Amino acid sequence: MKTVYITRRENFNAAHKLWQENWSDEKNLEVFGKCSNHNWHGHNFTIYVTVKGIPNPETGFVINLKELSEIIKRDVIEPLDHKNLNLDVPFLKGILASTENVVIKIWEQIVDPIAKAGGELCKIKLVETENNFVEYFGGKEPF
Amino acid sequence: MKTVYITRRENFNAAHKLWQENWSDEKNLEVFGKCSNHNWHGHNFTIYVTVKGIPNPETGFVINLKELSEIIKRDVIEPLDHKNLNLDVPFLKGILASTENVVIKIWEQIVDPIAKAGGELCKIKLVETENNFVEYFGGKEPF
Amino acid sequence: MKTVYITRRENFNAAHKLWQENWSDEKNLEVFGKCSNHNWHGHNFTIYVTVKGIPNPETGFVINLKELSEIIKRDVIEPLDHKNLNLDVPFLKGILASTENVVIKIWEQIVDPIAKAGGELCKIKLVETENNFVEYFGGKEPF
Amino acid sequence: MKTVYITRRENFNAAHKLWQENWSDEKNLEVFGKCSNHNWHGHNFTIYVTVKGIPNPETGFVINLKELSEIIKRDVIEPLDHKNLNLDVPFLKGILASTENVVIKIWEQIVDPIAKAGGELCKIKLVETENNFVEYFGGKEPF
Amino acid sequence: MKTVYITRRENFNAAHKLWQENWSDEKNLEVFGKCSNHNWHGHNFTIYVTVKGIPNPETGFVINLKELSEIIKRDVIEPLDHKNLNLDVPFLKGILASTENVVIKIWEQIVDPIAKAGGELCKIKLVETENNFVEYFGGKEPF
Amino acid sequence: MKTVYITRRENFNAAHKLWQENWSDEKNLEVFGKCSNHNWHGHNFTIYVTVKGIPNPETGFVINLKELSEIIKRDVIEPLDHKNLNLDVPFLKGILASTENVVIKIWEQIVDPIAKAGGELCKIKLVETENNFVEYFGGKEPF
Repeated sequence: MKTVYITRRENFNAAHKLWQENWSDEKNLEVFGKCSNHNWHGHNFTIYVTVKGIPNPETGFVINLKELSEIIKRDVIEPLDHKNLNLDVPFLKGILASTENVVIKIWEQIVDPIAKAGGELCKIKLVETENNFVEYFGGKEPF
Repeated sequence: MKTVYITRRENFNAAHKLWQENWSDEKNLEVFGKCSNHNWHGHNFTIYVTVKGIPNPETGFVINLKELSEIIKRDVIEPLDHKNLNLDVPFLKGILASTENVVIKIWEQIVDPIAKAGGELCKIKLVETENNFVEYFGGKEPF
Repeated sequence: MKTVYITRRENFNAAHKLWQENWSDEKNLEVFGKCSNHNWHGHNFTIYVTVKGIPNPETGFVINLKELSEIIKRDVIEPLDHKNLNLDVPFLKGILASTENVVIKIWEQIVDPIAKAGGELCKIKLVETENNFVEYFGGKEPF
Repeated sequence: MKTVYITRRENFNAAHKLWQENWSDEKNLEVFGKCSNHNWHGHNFTIYVTVKGIPNPETGFVINLKELSEIIKRDVIEPLDHKNLNLDVPFLKGILASTENVVIKIWEQIVDPIAKAGGELCKIKLVETENNFVEYFGGKEPF
Repeated sequence: MKTVYITRRENFNAAHKLWQENWSDEKNLEVFGKCSNHNWHGHNFTIYVTVKGIPNPETGFVINLKELSEIIKRDVIEPLDHKNLNLDVPFLKGILASTENVVIKIWEQIVDPIAKAGGELCKIKLVETENNFVEYFGGKEPF
Repeated sequence: MKTVYITRRENFNAAHKLWQENWSDEKNLEVFGKCSNHNWHGHNFTIYVTVKGIPNPETGFVINLKELSEIIKRDVIEPLDHKNLNLDVPFLKGILASTENVVIKIWEQIVDPIAKAGGELCKIKLVETENNFVEYFGGKEPF
């Protein structure tokens, strides 16, 4: 059984801040530092979506990358690109916009559409800066 | 006369929007597209500052990179990092926060401090995304 | 006069070979080495198009990047992406498809459309691999 | 048992097309899009080969990288670099040249030579463009 | 249980050589090649430290990246940056300074401090050049 | 006259320190900081060599990149790779091994061999880390 993992990269540029509504300004500053700046800051986010499967004998594809790209663009890039993660995104409402929380919510958006397209979502990597990124395997712990 | 050019890279993460106050919402959207999103978006900006000069015979330096880095951090990164370019930055007040305008204003902040440190600022490159960047030579047109 | 240089990056993936029709197979192999492989090889080409100008006081733009991107996509990416540079591209017909020759021909395709959009094309950088690239300034020699 | 994973990167530039011989031109175009261009296109492929093992107490090596590099160059780069993946490569004959299929065939070429050199091949990553890559663990599913 | 993996990148520049004291110069040259150069050579090392955990409901953090960065800087970068890995580093004394051995020793330095900060170290990736890197999972074999 | 600029990239890994023999240890530390570490440190240096010319009508080449690469490998990479810039390199003897001084000396090594091969060396870029690099135009000041 020759399972192959295929990954598609997309980008979005967004504003956010790390802010806990239940805390004082001082505690927000203490915990989140400059990321708590009241007037927001932002990033060029890069997302890598990995799907696994056995290549189709006729197409050689685990999943058609065009189809995978369209799902990511429709369900992730369109709602997040050039947006404010704290204010503008229905599926992030009420969520503290840490990269960890965002990657979990992105997973929930695309796991079913990818399954309908015949693929199995197995990993999302979300890069915030060249110095930090998160990875999410749907809650699984491969290592 | 063996002039050498030396470049220091620094990063800052900021929010901004492209917005012309004198225009209607419709015209802003028409000209600036998704960059006009009311609630801001953001980027990981990378700045490359280039200084030219003849290496000092005793140190081999055009300028001490530690000193150059301190100037950039104090006069560019500190005021811009994790900030909103439209709201939080005194030297950008009243300026439409396009990358072109921002690079000109950054030049004005550091040209004198670099001269005082014995260097000659000759180029700033400001990268907004992997797909677009601006370069500024203090108004000169080398090509 | 605060001239700023702005650059837009785009990509295309293409096949080509280096082949001089007037030469024997042996001489082609001797001069072009493995690049002369009869059945083609290919690259992920990256193109950087630089336009210079004074930022518009109302928009802060040297040129609207959306417009610049559309010109590059229409006149460069569309005809070259997923194509064979020796066989498929009208504006490269009869040209030995070296990176040097290709960059000159690309310049000729976009210099006028960019001028019509109010910009001045001043540099194209065409990257063939991480180890080699060419730059063209319309024939000028800035250094 | 202090197992360490070591990875070597190599590059090759090749032409290919996605084409199913059993289909009409129309169906090829519908499924494979511009990747089905009759006259080929190409990429700068990057391959990462990962070997695991316990560092040798005398050398500190999981495997001598010089030896690993020689295997990859002899068995992967030599047959694929500046070649046409559909026409020129004996071990890809009869295979639809999707990245998924190519990575499986590359694994078959090097798993035994690496074992003979005392290493255990555990992963190959094959990058086609900055936007898509595949990973293969010999059929295993680590996540 | 929504386990997320978060990674922090840091850099250090160091000299080293690959040299087995118990061997002759000839055998060192034979096994380690140019890496055995008597007068040292060096690299820009990049380290990626990965911690896993369930995001804290109040902060959205697996671990506070500021705290993780401080641990890495204090226990890895401070002792290794601008140092000679064979001569200057207490925790590498008596160790052949291969990348494999260095990554194991770095793990031992930071696994407890990260645990005390509430995180679980699960992977270190140590990049020596763009062509080779090692990964260490504390001895575990996830694939 | 369609002058094109072509650039070849090569890499070398070397040790060095910044050290002025005529100064006390204290002054060396004060000026050069951690770069003065007695036991050396090191870097992955990347060099970009740019040659300009008019593409040959028969080959489409400014210079044959294979020939340019061989010159760089013979005259730069061979003497510098896996070496100590302060101790091992004849053409750097007596020179304070700053990046500025090294780039000037490299220019002197390759300007004539490149001229003999029919090319005109016009720029060398020497990258020490992702945060700093130098450029040298043979002493000219293009900007």
